[in-house]
Amino acid sequence: MSGVPDHLRRPVRGMRDWLPPQFYALRRMEEVLGAVAESFGYRRVETPVVEHFEVLAKKAGEEVVKEIYYFRDKAGRELGLRFDMTVPVARVLSYNLDLPRPVRWYYFTKVFRYDEPQHGRYREFYQFGVELIGSSSPRADAEVVQVLAASLEAAGASNYLVKINDRRAVDKLLESLGAAQYRDVVYKALDKKLKLPREEVVGIMTEGGLSREVAEKIYDAAGELSLEEAVDVLSKLDPKLGATYGKFVKYLEASVPLEKMRFDMSIVRGLDYYTGIVFEAFVGDYRLAVGGGGRYDDLLGLYSGVPTPALGFAVGVERLMEAVGLQAVEKPLDYYIYIFDDDAYKYAVAVARKLRAGGHSVVIELGEKSLKDAFEYALKIGARHLIIIGRRELEKGVVKIRDLEKREEVERPLSDFLA
Amino acid sequence: MSGVPDHLRRPVRGMRDWLPPQFYALRRMEEVLGAVAESFGYRRVETPVVEHFEVLAKKAGEEVVKEIYYFRDKAGRELGLRFDMTVPVARVLSYNLDLPRPVRWYYFTKVFRYDEPQHGRYREFYQFGVELIGSSSPRADAEVVQVLAASLEAAGASNYLVKINDRRAVDKLLESLGAAQYRDVVYKALDKKLKLPREEVVGIMTEGGLSREVAEKIYDAAGELSLEEAVDVLSKLDPKLGATYGKFVKYLEASVPLEKMRFDMSIVRGLDYYTGIVFEAFVGDYRLAVGGGGRYDDLLGLYSGVPTPALGFAVGVERLMEAVGLQAVEKPLDYYIYIFDDDAYKYAVAVARKLRAGGHSVVIELGEKSLKDAFEYALKIGARHLIIIGRRELEKGVVKIRDLEKREEVERPLSDFLA
Repeated sequence: MSGVPDHLRRPVRGMRDWLPPQFYALRRMEEVLGAVAESFGYRRVETPVVEHFEVLAKKAGEEVVKEIYYFRDKAGRELGLRFDMTVPVARVLSYNLDLPRPVRWYYFTKVFRYDEPQHGRYREFYQFGVELIGSSSPRADAEVVQVLAASLEAAGASNYLVKINDRRAVDKLLESLGAAQYRDVVYKALDKKLKLPREEVVGIMTEGGLSREVAEKIYDAAGELSLEEAVDVLSKLDPKLGATYGKFVKYLEASVPLEKMRFDMSIVRGLDYYTGIVFEAFVGDYRLAVGGGGRYDDLLGLYSGVPTPALGFAVGVERLMEAVGLQAVEKPLDYYIYIFDDDAYKYAVAVARKLRAGGHSVVIELGEKSLKDAFEYALKIGARHLIIIGRRELEKGVVKIRDLEKREEVERPLSDFLA
Repeated sequence: MSGVPDHLRRPVRGMRDWLPPQFYALRRMEEVLGAVAESFGYRRVETPVVEHFEVLAKKAGEEVVKEIYYFRDKAGRELGLRFDMTVPVARVLSYNLDLPRPVRWYYFTKVFRYDEPQHGRYREFYQFGVELIGSSSPRADAEVVQVLAASLEAAGASNYLVKINDRRAVDKLLESLGAAQYRDVVYKALDKKLKLPREEVVGIMTEGGLSREVAEKIYDAAGELSLEEAVDVLSKLDPKLGATYGKFVKYLEASVPLEKMRFDMSIVRGLDYYTGIVFEAFVGDYRLAVGGGGRYDDLLGLYSGVPTPALGFAVGVERLMEAVGLQAVEKPLDYYIYIFDDDAYKYAVAVARKLRAGGHSVVIELGEKSLKDAFEYALKIGARHLIIIGRRELEKGVVKIRDLEKREEVERPLSDFLA
């Protein structure tokens, strides 16, 4: 017997297995983040991981469409694995038009992108996120940013920073520079601003047809500002946008620490569906954004035929776990019961039943280990107590309970467990 | 704007969306079943939904391999969506050979089968199950059946019945009838025993080459027996098997209500990897098995190269939910806060913060609804309280809290919320 080659024993490239300590760390994150979303009135939804390819491709943008796991089923249907939850949620709402609006939904689930695997970038990964559907109020924008901030705080990432932009601001800037037709190349260039030196970012724009002068102006405009400064800048670009933005900032001021927010025109986001505010969240010195989102007022109408303003965010759960150092949560066993022969089995079952009813986790030895081996096994799996029911104990009508941490042993009447 | 055609609004054929009431029903099932598994010392694991096709196909059996969602990624890798969790768990253990044995793991997750969708049969569905790896003791068999029984009981399906067989018993029976070479066709015929009349089941065997006499003997042997009767039958077929089975029944007797167990040689299970005990669970008059499992002593060695006895069960979660009538769990909102103008926003945020910190769910109106519309919306989404902070309330330094169920209204000092 040789088994399968090593690469087949490991998960598919770019994906990961969750053994219990890792799974319970993930679970803790799910509980913490879910509790925040629920406290804001968001309710959880789930959709199939398999989606209509046509639904996925509709507004993903060229970059993301390339990353979709695509296949046909045996009936020839074109399918794909979802790359986010915003698109499936938009699909679900397109046949649930009678739900009272606004709708507040959240999710914590797997999404898939066929990207080059690297640190913090998996091909299957978990996203936690919320969608607030049916409101164009700047209060909605502020609420979603507040939920994001509260989520990061609750996850132990109080050293977060949210960088906020508005696609309309970039568009207005380009208009004012007579460069509106270069929108795509500017977005592409700005998206690289955090990763590449100035020369190269400017280079992307000039290669795209912009003059060096305008390209440099755009680059310089895309620096970090406080939100209050941003209100001034936006008011100059477009008074109406400035007024809306002023309200948004006022709402935010009431609900989040404003010093953890920055305005940054280089935040444009990779997905095609955004139409207004966009933002990304960073934690400490973790290099990659742990989350991001924005307003996508045109997306829902594409599926439902009914124009519906909406926005949301998604957090990359594995990245957030890495950023806060949550990697493993041990879940020790409470009791391991050892018996010497079959006659004691029914007592072991009764003791176990009683302990389980009290909320404890209990394993009964399967009859294949010596006491010594069982003892070592119990230590290895992190059991807290070893219960021994031997002939001597049965004659005395007791069970022996050994606390494996404190290394103490007590006897308790068997009758305590048989009630 | 017309949106997408109706079939693209719905989930992919054979799959389903989980809106909040359905999701929270699923969640309740996950909590109840997970608590049972954990009380028996099982710890949860998760693996990618995408698996190496070669890993999936190795021991699935012809029928199931046909049902695998198969695709190639952009690098040409042959992949598939997992059809169960037993195979991925076997893969995971093949590179974790140093884990203390036995290993007790459980899962609650999605699996995929490209089967003809029908009542109780989805193409994406949830399985809850356990795997007990590294023991060939009949106590292990009894433990797994006990966990299954406890899971069904906890899920509200106390009217369950577990039908148990042992593949070795069928093989011994065939040997005794000189029909060992007809194993495959007999398994196929017995698998249909619950669905087809006697004539057709016997017909499958005679068409497969068995004499009518032997086929009828096999059919008649495959009736329901009590487990005690089964010990006698098995002892006659093979004393050693009978002795093992006797122990198994004795362990079961100590741990589950034996009247809910039946021996039934027609239970053979569709998956190829089973080697010993096999069983299926039924609930009330729900037509399909809600779960099943068995011993698969050869499977782990196929991947790891190290022979490792193991067994487990899986429950079809959607089927179980249907069998017990758990379809929707409402999660009402605790507080909906209405304000009349922006000046009150910071008070609304403060009140919401205080209530959220106390474990409540709170929504602040986004400023787009009249009080009347907000009131109707709050009723529609099932909010329990409506809080009003208007000019009059601010002047008095109070908030007005209306209990929407009891239709009562109280005022509380705003200062209660600002501490």
